[in-house]
Amino acid sequence: MKINILLYDGMTALDAVGPYEVLSRFPGNEVLFVADRAGPVRTDTGFLTLVADASLDEAPSAEIVLVPGGFTPPLTPGPVHEWLRAADATSTWTTSVCVGSLILGAAGLLDGRRATSHWLTLDNLTEYGAIPTAERVVIDGKYATGAGVSAGIDLALTLLGEIVGPEAAMAVQLGIEYDPAPPFPAGSPAKAPDPIVTFLRENRDLVVRL
Amino acid sequence: MKINILLYDGMTALDAVGPYEVLSRFPGNEVLFVADRAGPVRTDTGFLTLVADASLDEAPSAEIVLVPGGFTPPLTPGPVHEWLRAADATSTWTTSVCVGSLILGAAGLLDGRRATSHWLTLDNLTEYGAIPTAERVVIDGKYATGAGVSAGIDLALTLLGEIVGPEAAMAVQLGIEYDPAPPFPAGSPAKAPDPIVTFLRENRDLVVRL
Repeated sequence: MKINILLYDGMTALDAVGPYEVLSRFPGNEVLFVADRAGPVRTDTGFLTLVADASLDEAPSAEIVLVPGGFTPPLTPGPVHEWLRAADATSTWTTSVCVGSLILGAAGLLDGRRATSHWLTLDNLTEYGAIPTAERVVIDGKYATGAGVSAGIDLALTLLGEIVGPEAAMAVQLGIEYDPAPPFPAGSPAKAPDPIVTFLRENRDLVVRL
Repeated sequence: MKINILLYDGMTALDAVGPYEVLSRFPGNEVLFVADRAGPVRTDTGFLTLVADASLDEAPSAEIVLVPGGFTPPLTPGPVHEWLRAADATSTWTTSVCVGSLILGAAGLLDGRRATSHWLTLDNLTEYGAIPTAERVVIDGKYATGAGVSAGIDLALTLLGEIVGPEAAMAVQLGIEYDPAPPFPAGSPAKAPDPIVTFLRENRDLVVRL
């Protein structure tokens, strides 16, 4: 199975690397990192560079297309949206993590679809005709969206379970020892202490820049 | 706070990117990716390239040094071990994810220390005088080690809680929406179905190459 993961300047690394680490571990799967131009892409913090091995023009079609979020997601019409629509026309699964769902929406792919996003940008989905759904992983037809950043791991394990079966997903999960034990119960606005939630709402540019 | 994360050919991307995503999000923190030589590093699957921004010689000292695991960890004496010993001499925290603890051990830094590793390589720690400790995150003095691959996220949140305080760690956790919900209960050998555990023990080169 071929998986194309979109990279772009200002993206969030874990949005892409979490699902990559899951999907790449099933034998026979091939992951290709693609971007507007092949070559280095600087992530949103400015501290990390990932490399796209192919340009959008060069990328062969793939069964799974995955779009990560970031500080500066491509939300205006352009080559990324054109590529996404073409990739979606032949994909088996079109997927996103975090505000990647807004990119899918802006490309016109989530109209009338249930989808999720980072909790701070969930309502933005309505701008694109999508139905905001506050769940960690949302599947509507062939569109699978994950919530903020770290949710890409759960998204990818869910996909692997759907596509190959639970045993394959469990083997990969055990391989990457995904037995999460967060030291604090603060991963969602429903669980985190109110002052922490308020702090992030008032300083949302620490997390998203929309 | 400065954080140096070691990269090397054959490393596992999520081991480094998980902690990076946590530690880089606290304002004022600076993460530098370092390697034997500055430039591209290919990860263990062959599908992803990360870029080291500085060579080991160029890297300034850092409060936190983090060593990821991988298929081909540098376990024989050489420049990486020399650099780690020098970095450890001035670090506040010397840390690892997955088989990164074996690299720390091989560099002579875990003698008599409690440490963890990927569940398949936990016992290898005894080769370096360390005390295998089957926990997700183990802290012994200034040495903090995480279990396999995905455990780096929990390790980094634990460190942030220790260094800056629980509120900072919770704000970062909520920022990356780390409210994990694995679709299967298979993340540790104690929880996964026996046939899955047996499969990985008999095919450990899918996960580690030691």
